[in-house]
Amino acid sequence: MKATIMYGAGDVRVETVADPVIQQPTDAIVRTVRTCVCGSDLHPYHSMGASEHGQSMGHELLGVVEELGSAVTQVKKGDLVIAPFAFADNTCPICKDGFQTACPHGGFYATPETAGLQAELARIPLADGSLVVVPGVTEKDEELLPSLLTLSDVYLTGYHAAHMARIQPGQTVTVVGDGAVGLSAVLAAKQLGAERIILMGRHKDRTDLGVEWGATDVVAERGEEGIQKVLDLTGGFGSHVVLEAVGLMPAYEQSHRVARTGGVISRVGVPQYEKAGVGFMSLFGRNLTLTGGPAPVRAYIEESIPLVLDGTITPGKVFDRTYTIDDVPAAYADMDARSTLKALVTI
Amino acid sequence: MKATIMYGAGDVRVETVADPVIQQPTDAIVRTVRTCVCGSDLHPYHSMGASEHGQSMGHELLGVVEELGSAVTQVKKGDLVIAPFAFADNTCPICKDGFQTACPHGGFYATPETAGLQAELARIPLADGSLVVVPGVTEKDEELLPSLLTLSDVYLTGYHAAHMARIQPGQTVTVVGDGAVGLSAVLAAKQLGAERIILMGRHKDRTDLGVEWGATDVVAERGEEGIQKVLDLTGGFGSHVVLEAVGLMPAYEQSHRVARTGGVISRVGVPQYEKAGVGFMSLFGRNLTLTGGPAPVRAYIEESIPLVLDGTITPGKVFDRTYTIDDVPAAYADMDARSTLKALVTI
Repeated sequence: MKATIMYGAGDVRVETVADPVIQQPTDAIVRTVRTCVCGSDLHPYHSMGASEHGQSMGHELLGVVEELGSAVTQVKKGDLVIAPFAFADNTCPICKDGFQTACPHGGFYATPETAGLQAELARIPLADGSLVVVPGVTEKDEELLPSLLTLSDVYLTGYHAAHMARIQPGQTVTVVGDGAVGLSAVLAAKQLGAERIILMGRHKDRTDLGVEWGATDVVAERGEEGIQKVLDLTGGFGSHVVLEAVGLMPAYEQSHRVARTGGVISRVGVPQYEKAGVGFMSLFGRNLTLTGGPAPVRAYIEESIPLVLDGTITPGKVFDRTYTIDDVPAAYADMDARSTLKALVTI
Repeated sequence: MKATIMYGAGDVRVETVADPVIQQPTDAIVRTVRTCVCGSDLHPYHSMGASEHGQSMGHELLGVVEELGSAVTQVKKGDLVIAPFAFADNTCPICKDGFQTACPHGGFYATPETAGLQAELARIPLADGSLVVVPGVTEKDEELLPSLLTLSDVYLTGYHAAHMARIQPGQTVTVVGDGAVGLSAVLAAKQLGAERIILMGRHKDRTDLGVEWGATDVVAERGEEGIQKVLDLTGGFGSHVVLEAVGLMPAYEQSHRVARTGGVISRVGVPQYEKAGVGFMSLFGRNLTLTGGPAPVRAYIEESIPLVLDGTITPGKVFDRTYTIDDVPAAYADMDARSTLKALVTI
């Protein structure tokens, strides 16, 4: 099969590798129908050291079940399935709490142990817990496929930010970042009843989609100017909720500066820092709450599928360009150059 | 009147000063019935530089209204009143949100602008917002007075930690710190329905009160040993909620180490640090929520008074020794030496 291998910063290749095989009775083999490139794939694309063997890539997948281990009971051959970006048993206490990304028996794709999903076939560990069947839909329902694929990561990562912030109807929500996750957070905030949604981003083609999805204000200014603009828009009080979809320190600082006293900062941008201000001058003094983390999208997929199927939400609009598997290296380059917001890959 | 003045580290004096007078039409003058010494008063007791004029001290008060400014309408002469440790208008949007400690028109006692409350008389700014009448009780109901006084700060600071953590019935709650606020947090966690309450503290006379108030386990070990003990007590998962009532960095680190994935750390110990770990290795990777701040006790007083009056809670048990106003310097010294948990001052 063809698979995507990264050999170092900027060096992505599509190569023919051995087809995956069932390794554990709980595994499934899935034929990929749609996959995509994630903003987080760009981190190694920028920084990975040269590797002789390379690292297979990808963690988002919509596919059709091809083969099942002997212990798998919840999916069957031919099912159209969504694979969340982390695999999990979905039965342990941590999964039952709704934090499947921390399942002690689970793990991540594109690691030395488990191949990435930007490939024609995938081995899915713990298939009963890790695959969600899309009922009544086949791979021929092409218009639905992009939005269904977003439930494997990007839309539900934005949703997780909004969910952890416990957005209440009528609240003001500021979204920091106009990447695919930030825009998804706008859509999720709207779904949860936010009255005013301020999108901080400076790429008009992207913020336009944010406005379509419910952003009531766009703040293109950055730094102090951007902070002041949000404060001005909120009568000087700041935003009840801030959804941070960037992961860099300036975004963290901006977030607590624009939050209303007693408000919530919810992060889904993977922090590229370990320490940050949390004391009297940043979080504590104004009773700010900091929340968020890796999105346990598995917890939200079932409830989201009907919203996609009935057209309530169309999160697949984040995909602005489609590539073949052979063109995945170009997809990385285009996303890196910001000429593509999010690359859909059709297998 | 007599008032408590701190002239530097370890130098507390009770002196005769001018009686306070109405300065604004919204002021009230209150005759102190009970006041007390706060753990936070020990910070300047340790570190204050020598001051020629000194600084008046204290921010907790139960008293009787003596005199009213012309604009005060909600309290009347002779009312027994509780003064929350911060004054606030209680009408602005931030107060309506329940965060009166951040009222833009409010402020704090024991500052250059507003005298402290360890004194025979006090000027209370914004009296309509800042004083809460205790209905049907007089200063002669002596057995009720200590618990009513705790509603000005200590009990409701512990309660704030529990409230911000949104404790759900059946949850496991770990309290870090066996000072008066930590013990109050135990009582509040019990009130909110925590099933298991693990108190981390090593002063048996204090943790005994914690057990009386609902702690099901006491962990006297500190550091790695203490962390492991909490993990062992929780089946390796950690605690749904951690209430941090210390404010030092080791307590912060201990808190995130004993928190369950997806759990909440709620701080009311004023952080003696500004930066701390919040990245993938501390908070983010396990979806931990960090919350808390200065307790807006004003928001909780009315609902707490009936619980004190009917004996549901007796938070006044944190006071283990009573002093006269003349003995306040000894109260500081005894609390500093940990021979007194919390000093009640009878005026």
